[in-house]
Amino acid sequence: MSILIKNVLLNGESRDVYIEKNRFARIAQNLPLSADSVIEGGDFAILPAFYNIHTHAAMSLMRSYADDIELFSWLNAYIWPLEQKITEEDVYHGARLAALEMIKSGTVFFNDMYWHALGTARAVRDMGLRADISLVLIDAGDPGRSDEQLRRAHELFDHEGEFPDRIRFTYGPHAIYTVSEKTLRSCADLARKEGRRVQIHLSETETEVADSLKNFGKRPVEYLDAIGFLGPHVTAVHCVHLNDTDREILKKHGLTVAHCPASNMKLSSGAFDYAALKQKEIPVVVATDGASSNNNLSMLEAMKFAALWAKSLSGNPTTLPAEEAFAMATRFPAEAMGLDAGRIEEGALADCLLINLRHSSLIPSGNLIANMVYSADPECIDTVICDGRILMRNRIVPGEDTIIDGAEAAFRKLISR
Amino acid sequence: MSILIKNVLLNGESRDVYIEKNRFARIAQNLPLSADSVIEGGDFAILPAFYNIHTHAAMSLMRSYADDIELFSWLNAYIWPLEQKITEEDVYHGARLAALEMIKSGTVFFNDMYWHALGTARAVRDMGLRADISLVLIDAGDPGRSDEQLRRAHELFDHEGEFPDRIRFTYGPHAIYTVSEKTLRSCADLARKEGRRVQIHLSETETEVADSLKNFGKRPVEYLDAIGFLGPHVTAVHCVHLNDTDREILKKHGLTVAHCPASNMKLSSGAFDYAALKQKEIPVVVATDGASSNNNLSMLEAMKFAALWAKSLSGNPTTLPAEEAFAMATRFPAEAMGLDAGRIEEGALADCLLINLRHSSLIPSGNLIANMVYSADPECIDTVICDGRILMRNRIVPGEDTIIDGAEAAFRKLISR
Repeated sequence: MSILIKNVLLNGESRDVYIEKNRFARIAQNLPLSADSVIEGGDFAILPAFYNIHTHAAMSLMRSYADDIELFSWLNAYIWPLEQKITEEDVYHGARLAALEMIKSGTVFFNDMYWHALGTARAVRDMGLRADISLVLIDAGDPGRSDEQLRRAHELFDHEGEFPDRIRFTYGPHAIYTVSEKTLRSCADLARKEGRRVQIHLSETETEVADSLKNFGKRPVEYLDAIGFLGPHVTAVHCVHLNDTDREILKKHGLTVAHCPASNMKLSSGAFDYAALKQKEIPVVVATDGASSNNNLSMLEAMKFAALWAKSLSGNPTTLPAEEAFAMATRFPAEAMGLDAGRIEEGALADCLLINLRHSSLIPSGNLIANMVYSADPECIDTVICDGRILMRNRIVPGEDTIIDGAEAAFRKLISR
Repeated sequence: MSILIKNVLLNGESRDVYIEKNRFARIAQNLPLSADSVIEGGDFAILPAFYNIHTHAAMSLMRSYADDIELFSWLNAYIWPLEQKITEEDVYHGARLAALEMIKSGTVFFNDMYWHALGTARAVRDMGLRADISLVLIDAGDPGRSDEQLRRAHELFDHEGEFPDRIRFTYGPHAIYTVSEKTLRSCADLARKEGRRVQIHLSETETEVADSLKNFGKRPVEYLDAIGFLGPHVTAVHCVHLNDTDREILKKHGLTVAHCPASNMKLSSGAFDYAALKQKEIPVVVATDGASSNNNLSMLEAMKFAALWAKSLSGNPTTLPAEEAFAMATRFPAEAMGLDAGRIEEGALADCLLINLRHSSLIPSGNLIANMVYSADPECIDTVICDGRILMRNRIVPGEDTIIDGAEAAFRKLISR
């Protein structure tokens, strides 16, 4: 399988981009090549696609099911009762809907944590995306349930052979207030041994910090440091409530922070101090969280929310400029996840977007990256290519009607079950 | 001219909606009527369109021309030098681009303040929207320039007869720090006498408040109260820095506050206290500001930014729920501007959107209004009707290429002039 994109705008210059199998093979002017698919790129710019490093994809099934509610009521009265009834088939339909909306807004990779993760993996396989997929681990602080939790994770890993390389299985312990020290320690050991990444919700709310101080005599980051959980393979999600010591620890371990601005704002989790993390050069990337607390998976929106909120909170409009926000949604998260991707260069994995430069939201055409961060309507994303395959062309994703019908039916069944 | 929309979802029930001239004439099941245009509405919901009560439409021409810069440098080094060279023709092309992006994101009315306002009025006439249009008045605090400023406003009003009723001309004194007391007083008197609305930027930054205290011995709102400027015909834009006395004054005069969350955040203007205004029952509506400080004119984004920011700042996720945010972008601003619109009811002006319920961003279909506020991709807006005329159908706005070429060329000429 090969794709030739002719005369496309790359960093301000017209280029031909030749994709062979799943890599950018040649990038130059006037390539004398033919290909299985040829795209005339004259009206398009080619840009890296988005990498979303914190999601609960299947929660798109619960989009707008319960909004504007206190966190505790939201979980207890709405989300958890549904999740107790959710099946692998529901998760498949929810994750397929999520994949559809991700493709339509330019995302090619997501880092997921959810129940029945095999359903998510099947959806990713069918939709052609990349993903790191973890089963959410929750033992309610009961070390007696530790072995069972890790056994469930390994049952998932046993299916690895059934999936292409673009799908990887990882560890997803939920948070320090839902997972026992025993499970967290085992998770850390196994992840290192097996070479798997880990993601965990961390310091999301004031309550989490207060409870951690009460229960462990330490703040959440200090606690995870003390039990040997942290390392460069860990994605720390949220990190809204940090002090200088916390930031020193994150820095020391080379962690990546997944910043989910829309979720933090919608749930009133607190004020994310981007400027302080930036000052310490701690890698921060932008993510959406699940659609239940956002309520979509648009990385375009996530970039704009991150940039504008950082400016507002720091009182400085030069904080988090457009180029930085764009890198935090493309190159930085790809690098953080150890993917040879996130850039349009010969040899890199062939993930990219073709952007319709004639879309009104990108006019005038002075600064494409600023337009992508601050102004772009997702409709300007014409084509999405992931791993050398065209997932969307002319904004059409094959099978869209089936995906929508499947998700709608699954949601109806779930709430009436 | 008549339009019949068959079997469209209105407040959860299937209805036929018949539009005659510029009003909703009949709304019922199975209307036995024919019409000039018939739209099969089976896959659509009908919703009120958006009313954007603070814009500088032609500034779409400067979209992403200068971002991530301190306010004072932004104005002095970038925006004002361009505005000194801008012509009525540039303003026409900029406002036509703005109108295009407004239609594509579901807006049918905007309340504008800008230079060469006749260019804006011509664009609105050509594009079929509604607008209240004011020439920005700035005398740099020099009362000697007052007569000249008001003469320029009246030169604009002299053209009123050339435009349809959906275009109204109003007063737009820029702010208390750019307009002399004499001009503000004259503006207030003339607006009352002529029955015109007024909009003014008010209490946007800390500097404005500090300078007002220094120069007038009063806070901005107190100063405008003292000189008799305020009244129910005034739209107070921004109102980021208010104390209890300010809010009492706004309440007493029945003013409407235009809240521009993206602009306030991007320019680091301060924290807008929605909860305090709501508690006093002061009408607050959502607006975008100009594309130079946003950088688009999407009311979908404005609703989400307003709702999420209000939750975050108040520390309470129940603040500004979805139904309220939606009303603040539709019914409330229409009422505030004295338009018999903003609702789908027999007799009201025929402004509406047809929403494609099969769009992935609205699935599952549980709560349409929450989906519109928190999740909607503008692509879900299939059709826009304003004043009984179809401005967009199947997401196609007639003449889009010409508008884009015109704006791009005008911007190129402007920056090289």
